[in-house]
Amino acid sequence: MRYLILILFTYVKCDPDYFAKRNRIVESELRIALGGNMSLTSKENEVNNCLMRHKFDELDYAFNNPDNFGLSHHFFKYKDNIPKSKVYKIIKDMPKGAILHIHDMAIIGPDYLLNITYMDNLYVCLGKQISFLFSNKVPNTTCENRWELMSEVRRAAKNVTAFDAKIRKQFTLVVKNPDIVYPTIKETWTAFGNFFSTVHPLLTYRPIWEKYFYDALKAFRDDNVYYVEVRSILPNLYELDGTVFEKIVTAKAYKKAIHKFMRDYPDFVGAKLIFAPNRKVNRTILSEYIQTARQIKNSMPELFAGFDLVGQEDAGNPLIEFVPQLCAATNLNFFFHAGETNWFGTMTDENLVDAVLLGAKRIGHAYALAKHPVLLEMVKEKQIGLEVNVVSNSVLSLVRDVRNHPLNIFLSLNLPVVLSSDDPGAWEADPLSDDFYISFVGVASRLADLRVLKTLALNSLKYSALDPAAKTLAITHFHSKWNSFIENFDCRSY
Amino acid sequence: MRYLILILFTYVKCDPDYFAKRNRIVESELRIALGGNMSLTSKENEVNNCLMRHKFDELDYAFNNPDNFGLSHHFFKYKDNIPKSKVYKIIKDMPKGAILHIHDMAIIGPDYLLNITYMDNLYVCLGKQISFLFSNKVPNTTCENRWELMSEVRRAAKNVTAFDAKIRKQFTLVVKNPDIVYPTIKETWTAFGNFFSTVHPLLTYRPIWEKYFYDALKAFRDDNVYYVEVRSILPNLYELDGTVFEKIVTAKAYKKAIHKFMRDYPDFVGAKLIFAPNRKVNRTILSEYIQTARQIKNSMPELFAGFDLVGQEDAGNPLIEFVPQLCAATNLNFFFHAGETNWFGTMTDENLVDAVLLGAKRIGHAYALAKHPVLLEMVKEKQIGLEVNVVSNSVLSLVRDVRNHPLNIFLSLNLPVVLSSDDPGAWEADPLSDDFYISFVGVASRLADLRVLKTLALNSLKYSALDPAAKTLAITHFHSKWNSFIENFDCRSY
Repeated sequence: MRYLILILFTYVKCDPDYFAKRNRIVESELRIALGGNMSLTSKENEVNNCLMRHKFDELDYAFNNPDNFGLSHHFFKYKDNIPKSKVYKIIKDMPKGAILHIHDMAIIGPDYLLNITYMDNLYVCLGKQISFLFSNKVPNTTCENRWELMSEVRRAAKNVTAFDAKIRKQFTLVVKNPDIVYPTIKETWTAFGNFFSTVHPLLTYRPIWEKYFYDALKAFRDDNVYYVEVRSILPNLYELDGTVFEKIVTAKAYKKAIHKFMRDYPDFVGAKLIFAPNRKVNRTILSEYIQTARQIKNSMPELFAGFDLVGQEDAGNPLIEFVPQLCAATNLNFFFHAGETNWFGTMTDENLVDAVLLGAKRIGHAYALAKHPVLLEMVKEKQIGLEVNVVSNSVLSLVRDVRNHPLNIFLSLNLPVVLSSDDPGAWEADPLSDDFYISFVGVASRLADLRVLKTLALNSLKYSALDPAAKTLAITHFHSKWNSFIENFDCRSY
Repeated sequence: MRYLILILFTYVKCDPDYFAKRNRIVESELRIALGGNMSLTSKENEVNNCLMRHKFDELDYAFNNPDNFGLSHHFFKYKDNIPKSKVYKIIKDMPKGAILHIHDMAIIGPDYLLNITYMDNLYVCLGKQISFLFSNKVPNTTCENRWELMSEVRRAAKNVTAFDAKIRKQFTLVVKNPDIVYPTIKETWTAFGNFFSTVHPLLTYRPIWEKYFYDALKAFRDDNVYYVEVRSILPNLYELDGTVFEKIVTAKAYKKAIHKFMRDYPDFVGAKLIFAPNRKVNRTILSEYIQTARQIKNSMPELFAGFDLVGQEDAGNPLIEFVPQLCAATNLNFFFHAGETNWFGTMTDENLVDAVLLGAKRIGHAYALAKHPVLLEMVKEKQIGLEVNVVSNSVLSLVRDVRNHPLNIFLSLNLPVVLSSDDPGAWEADPLSDDFYISFVGVASRLADLRVLKTLALNSLKYSALDPAAKTLAITHFHSKWNSFIENFDCRSY
């Protein structure tokens, strides 16, 4: 009793509005944040209650047992545990809208690529790095060892399982001890570069390419993603006899695969291409790239979404090197990678300035944006979509503990964020669900709920390159998928 | 020639104001940022040129050789390389103003503590964890082994160097393989807790305590820091005969040490005490703490700066538990730890709300603040000092690569930041220079220059608890130290 009186006694000395003021602050931050203005139907609220119960369970356990919170470590350390999460299972089943930042050659994972090595006419060079090439005769390109028929090498292997495991390793960055293997961004990007070198000749064999992208679209649809904007360097496809095609042929192969896929799956909204060649080139080559982009835009306007430059941003040329040329090409629609860096105040960091000034419709990554208050306002005002790839940024050595990812700031300011997965095949992640899960549980506020997930899904359509009419249709389509997800939701099945 | 024409041809298609617009963005971000409004004298500009030449050398080398950029790793991995840096040497020589966030029992490093173990009347208990106690007879407190005189144990050791090395290890968190030893915040804080348990009975022996804080002030002055606000749990001091004193005695010992130090070093500005007991207590104990704070404030008003609560923030009680009591005690001046967490949207995270609403003069760490746009505005408006401890946050497992530390955002928005070092003795860092160096090179923009360093030093006085007249004097004193640093600066000596 004395204790109670003491509390009351001290309490009266408090500002009587203390808790009201406190609520106002907490609530206004939630209202400002992404999703904060959305209201949910009563059935959506039921789903949300189920979702949040599981989210709180996961996070509160982790808070009390931080040594059991995997998401503070490298993605490779916890990725295999994700499927156990109920929150993850709900997210997996949820329509997630579109995927807007994905690189074509790293969409599907290593098992798919291993299967390709079972195809006929594949030669292998078992050098320090393993190389492949489809050919109807022994390739005459350099091989530090000698070119052999893959089928024969495999047949000669003592243990095919072990042999295939070794081959599979070439198709993934995943390792058991990532902190040892990838101590800095240099080792990570070296491995990443090697991955692309190895995969390139497997996928660019023309018959495979056409099938591969169809299968990639299938993977997205299976993950409840219904529209895709794919970035491609437009690698030159080749035939068994050594014929090499121009980039326009690759673009046409895209068109063909997309058409076939949409015939087979009429509920799919579609796919578009962002031509995204390497940024580490001189101005002459860049001019050729811009020419190619124009050519594709003119001949396949419905396929062509826009233009970008790719590769490790710190190691490539900054945008400012190309400003005069890019100024002259703004009608191509820019979707530049910018700010995928930890180096504050460098030329790379300033790519964000040029991306904004060059009128980019969206920015790839924008990881460094939170340090740039002026640009941040411009991004918000101009509604430049930010394609955030949390898992990629973790795997590619920008951030380890995802709770430190600047997406949490982007969300708190309701910046025009879309979530994407960059190169999920290279790190054996889901097409999109892993990124949604990690962003929702590991990055966003504990209090972020279904409204955040739904807004992120809607953002992916809002900031897409679809023309206004198609965008409206796509959003209607999303709502129909979403409503059926909500209607059929049964908390007991998670 | 054709190439040039091509460039010119494309160039004319550019917005003629492109580069002017670009400069305006870059410059306005620099102007908005901390230090952006300061102008330098011509001699300061010379110093700045020297400083920035070395900074660019270091950063540009690291940018091109990211595998050689230590600051992306754990502090323990690179700390021994810091003294080689010329930027560091300049910073070391530079007056850095005041230190406002430091915990008394972890100011001086393990060698100092090892020396204490050579004193008479020290008993040791060589259990799983080593315990110490000064006493004039064998202690009767629990010991899982048996209490022995330290001098005898050392004499009996086969190899005194190895024995001392083992003892020294008890006084530091530094290990060769931090990523293995400290995989998560749990292991780090367990080790940190053990550190304090071990050190506590060594330092709280009354004669040592009085000398220790004097020596701590000496260490700050040697690092060009001239004013100190020290946080203390006010541990109960004891004598050889087992007498234990009340907390007020510890406070008096502070007063005595400070007076003696200022007599010996008349150029020192002074020191004040923030009473900061552990936050993991019930309301009754908290009331006692508040009483003690009042008692010290009344009896030694010139010593007492304010009140705080300490300990691992996630594991302790959130401020909201104590709001009624704290509301009634705002005249104590609050300097709360708040937002020293990675858990967005939790009760811990919301400590920031209560710290602001309870009228805290400064906030300790505020690590989570960047995710809170409303609070961020309030902090700026109310000019609540943010005591940022980058090395501490790295060692205590909030962030690994310091380039991801939110200080970069605080700097870009010119929030009321002061740099501090928290517990440098526990991780064998400088009193303050390491934190300044790492913040300047590893966190701030590459373009951040002497104006940032000078502003940070001035901020430490501006946001101190000195009364207005004393503050003015302290700032005048700083300018005099600063001017002599600038006048005597010789780039060739670095």
